[in-house]
Parts: sequence; C-alpha cells; structure tokens
Amino acid sequence: MAELSPSRRIRRTPFSNGVEAAGVKAYTVYNRMLLPTVFKSTEADYHHLKKAVQVWDVACERQVELRGPDASRLMQMLTPRDLRDVAPGRCVYVPIVDETGGMLNDPVAVKLAEDRWWISIADSDLLLWAKGICNGYHLDVLVDEPDVNLLAVQGPKAEDLMERVFGAGVREVKFFHFGEFEFQGRAMNVARSGYSKQGGFEIYTEGADIAMPLWEALFEAGRDLDVRAGCPNLIERIEGGLLSYGNDMTDDNTPHECGLGKLCDTQAAMGCIGRDALLRVAKEGPVQQIRPLEIAGDPVPLCDRVWPLMAGDKRVGQVTSAVWSPDFGVNVAIGMVRMTHWDPGTPLRAHTPDGERDVTVRENYWA
Amino acid sequence: MAELSPSRRIRRTPFSNGVEAAGVKAYTVYNRMLLPTVFKSTEADYHHLKKAVQVWDVACERQVELRGPDASRLMQMLTPRDLRDVAPGRCVYVPIVDETGGMLNDPVAVKLAEDRWWISIADSDLLLWAKGICNGYHLDVLVDEPDVNLLAVQGPKAEDLMERVFGAGVREVKFFHFGEFEFQGRAMNVARSGYSKQGGFEIYTEGADIAMPLWEALFEAGRDLDVRAGCPNLIERIEGGLLSYGNDMTDDNTPHECGLGKLCDTQAAMGCIGRDALLRVAKEGPVQQIRPLEIAGDPVPLCDRVWPLMAGDKRVGQVTSAVWSPDFGVNVAIGMVRMTHWDPGTPLRAHTPDGERDVTVRENYWA
Ligand SMILES: Nc1nc2c(c(=O)[nH]1)N[C@@H](CNc1ccc(C(=O)N[C@@H](CCC(=O)O)C(=O)O)cc1)CN2
Ligand SMILES: Nc1nc2c(c(=O)[nH]1)N[C@@H](CNc1ccc(C(=O)N[C@@H](CCC(=O)O)C(=O)O)cc1)CN2
Repeated sequence: MAELSPSRRIRRTPFSNGVEAAGVKAYTVYNRMLLPTVFKSTEADYHHLKKAVQVWDVACERQVELRGPDASRLMQMLTPRDLRDVAPGRCVYVPIVDETGGMLNDPVAVKLAEDRWWISIADSDLLLWAKGICNGYHLDVLVDEPDVNLLAVQGPKAEDLMERVFGAGVREVKFFHFGEFEFQGRAMNVARSGYSKQGGFEIYTEGADIAMPLWEALFEAGRDLDVRAGCPNLIERIEGGLLSYGNDMTDDNTPHECGLGKLCDTQAAMGCIGRDALLRVAKEGPVQQIRPLEIAGDPVPLCDRVWPLMAGDKRVGQVTSAVWSPDFGVNVAIGMVRMTHWDPGTPLRAHTPDGERDVTVRENYWA
Repeated sequence: MAELSPSRRIRRTPFSNGVEAAGVKAYTVYNRMLLPTVFKSTEADYHHLKKAVQVWDVACERQVELRGPDASRLMQMLTPRDLRDVAPGRCVYVPIVDETGGMLNDPVAVKLAEDRWWISIADSDLLLWAKGICNGYHLDVLVDEPDVNLLAVQGPKAEDLMERVFGAGVREVKFFHFGEFEFQGRAMNVARSGYSKQGGFEIYTEGADIAMPLWEALFEAGRDLDVRAGCPNLIERIEGGLLSYGNDMTDDNTPHECGLGKLCDTQAAMGCIGRDALLRVAKEGPVQQIRPLEIAGDPVPLCDRVWPLMAGDKRVGQVTSAVWSPDFGVNVAIGMVRMTHWDPGTPLRAHTPDGERDVTVRENYWA
C-alpha cells in the first residue's frame, strides 16, 4: 500500500488529534476528509467491535443542512422515498437520485423540524446538487454545510458507555430516532443508528470546539468497558450487508438495482426529480441487483476495483466489495448480478487479481 | 504518514498500472480518484521536472462535458469570465462561482465547438452543480462525465518528446490552445497547458483502452531524454504560484480574493449565477487576497491545515500551502492576507506546528 500525502484539501476533522493519539494506521478519504480505516488491523478491530465498544470519527459524513420554508419540499425533490409521514425526531435512510433515476448518494436524512433537515451524506458532493436544484427552482431554502461533526459509538457495550456520558435517557432512543441530550452544557442530537450491525449511537456534535472534550469523556468513562478508537469495519459491514456508495453502487445504478426499491414510493413521491425516470423500473423491477456473494478458497486479495462475474464466457455481473471473514470462515462479498443469474445458489466465477474463483449467490447477508 | 486504504470508491485511473510500475510512493485523492504525489521524493521529482521531461497521470482532473444547444449558455452561467469571444480550439482558466460568488472550482474549460465544452475540473463535484443548474433551469444540455483521461507531458524537453509521438505539428500549438492529433489511429486533443511552469502539453485521451498504449509510447520514445513518471509537484507549483482549490481557496472565497479578479468581467458576464453577488467586490476590491509569502528559517513541516498569520496579537490571514524550496533556499508559501497587511514587504508571524516563524509578504511568486 502507498502512503497518503496530507494537505489542507484532504480535511482533518475536529477528532483527528484523538484518532492520531490512538494510533491510526491507515485512512481513506471521504467527502475530501480523513476517515480512519485501520487501528490495530482490520481483523483485530473487527473482533473488538463485535464484543466491546468503539468510538468512531465519522465527521467525514458531512451534513448538508436545508433550512427554510421550502426545506421539506426540496428534500422530497431529492428522493423517491415518500417523506410525508416522517416526523421531526426521525432519521430516514434515503436514496438520492438524479433526473435519470441514477443514485447520487445514500444518506441518512435527519428531520429536525418541518423546515429544517440535516442530510448526513455518503461520499459525493450532495451539497452542490442540492444547491444547484435549490437555485434553479428558486426555492426558499438555505443550503449549506454546518460545523456539525458526527461521532459514532458502536458495539454491544455502546449503550452502557453512552448512559455514563449522557444519562439513562439514551436507552429510550429508538432505532433511527434521535433525541436531544446535554454534554458540558451543550445540546447534541443523539441518534440510535450507525454503520455497523452491532448496535450503537451517533452523536451530532455542533461546533469543532466540543469535539475533543466529548471524545475524551467517552474514553474516560469507558475504560473498564475496553472502549477503543475504531472505524467502519470492512468485514463487519459486508457481513451485515451495509452498502457503500462509490463501492457497491454509483450514479449508473437505480435504487432498485441497489435493493433499495423497498424504500421508494415512486408513485407517491410527488416532486421527486427522478420520479418519471423510475416509474418503469419501479413497476417492472430492475434487470440487475445487488446480492450477497460467497467467494470460495483462501482469503481474497484486496478488492480495489470491480471483479468481473462470469457464467461461462458471459459476463453477468461484478464483485464490488470482498474480504475474508474470520467468524464465518469464508470470503464475504457484495456484487451486482444480472437477473438471469441472481437466484440464491447460482454458481458463478469471479476473475480476481490472483485468478479465477468459484462464487455462489446467497439468499441473505451473514449477520 | 499513514497509509491510504485502497477501495473501488477511490477510483484507479487507466494509467494506474503504469504509475505503479514506475514505483509511485504516495498518493492523494482528487475527485475520488488516485493522484500520484511522490515517485523518488518530492525534491528529486522537482529537480528532474525542471531539467528533463515527465509524464503525469492527471486523469483525476475529470472532464464535465456540456453538449447541446444551450451548452455555451450553461457554461456562461457557471462563471463570471466573459466567454463570448472564446473560439473553439481554445482553453480558458475559469473561476466557477455559486450564487453567493463563492468559488466552487477553478477548472480549465476546453471549447470543442459552439455546442460542446469539456470542463477539466479541480477537486469538487462540479458535475453535480452543473447538472443541478441544468435541471433547474430546464436547459437543453447533456451534462456528464465522459471516458476522457488526461495525461500531461511537462518539463523543458516536453516539446521534443511530444514531437516524436505526435509529429512536428505539436510545436505549432499555442499556449492554452489545443489541436487534434492522431495516435495509433485515434484522434486526441492535445493542448499546450499544464499544472507546472516548465512548459508542456496535456493530452485528452478518449477511451480507457488507449491510455496505456500512449503511456508506453511516450516512455519508449523518450528514453534518451530521461523521461520519467512524475506528478504535479508541490514545490514547483508554489514557486510558480499555481493555485490549488481546496488548499489555497474554498467556497468561502470569491475569485477576487483568489487574485482571479482579472479573469472576471462581472459587468459583461450576463447570465452568470454569481454575477449580482460579485458586482460590489468587483467594483471595490476584496478585503483579503492570496499572496506569495516567504517563511523564514529551516524547512517548514508539512502544511496539512491552515497556519494562522499574525500581526502582533491580531490574526490577519493564514498560510494555506508551504514547503522548502531547494532552488531558492527559502520556504515558499501561499496564503490569504487581509488588505491592511498585504503590501509587499509587510512582516508577519506564522503559527506553525513547530513554533512561530517570521513571514514576509512578497511582490511576486518565485518562478
Ligand atoms: N449518520 C450517518 N450518516 C451516514 C452513514 C451512517 O452510517 N450514519 N453512512 C453513509 C450512508 N450509508 C448508509 C448505509 C446504511 C445505513 C444503515 O444504517 N442501514 C440499515 C437500515 C436502514 C433502514 O433501512 O432504515 C441497514 O441495516 O441496512 C446507514 C447509512 C453516509 N452517511
Ligand atoms: N487541463 C487541466 N485541468 C486542470 C488543471 C490543469 O492543470 N490542467 N489543474 C486544476 C485546475 N487549476 C489550474 C490552476 C492553474 C492553471 C494554469 O495553467 N494557470 C496558468 C495560466 C492560466 C491563465 O491565466 O490562462 C498560470 O500561469 O497561472 C490551470 C489549472 C484542475 N484541472
């Protein structure tokens, strides 16, 4: 692996000092910001995440704030998910599509009030799309990136740790809901959500100055819980079927291809810019779709580009994420597969950098 | 320095195999794509660039294509530079601004025809802004990212090398113009431009399949010219005053603050979305502006965040890029300085990670 050259353009986060002190070994870049990827090793981090609790610097999941009388209207223009029944206090996982129905992002949208949303984005400049649409349609919305920095607390002991810092009330927060809690006199939205299947919370901290005090309070409070610095874990997220924009899907794909058709209410999502383009695929279904895949043999090499999926001489899809799973003792993977070959049990072949491998389409993810 | 974790989301380029074979040591991420930053060392690469010729994989400078009857109208909506007199065959360096006059990008726009442009972008998703504006204003333009991959040939011997591969005609190409040339039966736009002050060309290759053949042909043809793989060089670009979006400026800055006011024709740029917001600053001038700065003392540490610039106890600006220059024997830097302290010769102090330093505002860049 090569090194990452630091520069101001690759933005540090308000938690970066803590991340460095904790011994981060590798990063990726996400929304032009540092996202840690490895502390001890991907496997050691994985085992720890599944049995204890970790604090993650996910400030790179930047917020796009929509504020003003047309905020909810603009939000609905961006997504085919029907948002009419979403109440303030809710988080919603929303596919964002362009006028062709192509995925531009798959953020978590946080409804703060009827006239105020935070969109917690994956890796693409959704800010520019939202600003362009807002400007072009002359909507009464302010669109910008506030100084909000997300910290995730993930793992089976996350609730215990969070109670110590925010009080017993955090236990009442339901999945994909958030509540307002206080830390050192500052109000913070705390949601039960996060990019792992181990349970946990996400804290929307406002103002860079409060970031490190919170980071330190969590480590201080969790010493006997074996709290460690962590990060979204490649193995755990594939086992759990958490998609990654840019890896498992791009703007070439519709939400239906990504298995997110169940979140779309294409008929009802009035005003959604991609609605017309999606009506047909909503009715007839996609011709390719994301599937869990098992890849035979020894641990696969690092997957940093698509691996063609073949049925005989015919290309029928591609692997987009893959890694060895210590707990399941197989290579777990995610890929896009054409409908002729997407049934569970279908045997395929993958062209990986170290040769051909047998692949089986699975019914479900592992976790 | 930490490692960069590879993944499909951090896109490889069609030249990446060549870059790896040439022994790349470090990368940055630019438009979610790999951009090499170091081969031998930043200093060794720098000395070589100034005396020989290098081939650079700058495919990360993605193209945003505008095609259709309203293409030139949309292009003018994006920038306060007056484009009415730009003829096909020309390249233009254009500030792109939002409705507040904030810089969204500083690309090179390539005019292919009255109804067709490529915008060769810096590091922000200009594609999404252009698509949003196009959609909101219902313009007749197709906006997308074509499979065009930019290869730069830079250095004093660039012309000699290019002649061997493309013929003597390349010598006729004028600065910031391009012509069509043939390589292995494929037409390519070859421009005299590039992100160095050493002279050279940029080749807009179309289709990933032709990328490595061209890469190899250039190395084959240039063996006696000591051609090497290279990349935009931090030292050389600061000496030459080439700005870097995300480093030296962000969407907080107007073009005028970036010293790009001379490229803006704010009165004449009818239709530019940021025009109204810029009229006042165009008339009265900005209150802070980018300046070349000399930083005293030993080589400065790596500059991966802004360093405050102080006049006594007062913050009057910030350093945004800085590095030791072997040829000039000083630390060369770029920063944003308030008008009260921006005159050449003004002594300031910079707060760097390894202590305070004397700083002098300079009249000109070094090269
Ligand atoms: N703030 C927050 N913002 C984010 C992410 C996050 O992690 N949290 N991650 C990225 C967005 N992608 C996802 C992908 C999956 C989920 C997720 O949590 N999915 C649940 C269920 C979601 C649902 O169906 O309601 C699942 O089990 O699949 C959340 C964000 C970027 N922004
Ligand atoms: N294709 C191409 N595309 C690019 C870059 C490039 O490098 N070439 N670089 C990034 C854009 N930024 C710049 C910055 C400076 C210049 C440049 O070349 N400036 C000349 C003069 C330009 C002028 O005033 O006309 C100078 O001397 O300052 C070009 C692109 C991204 N896109």
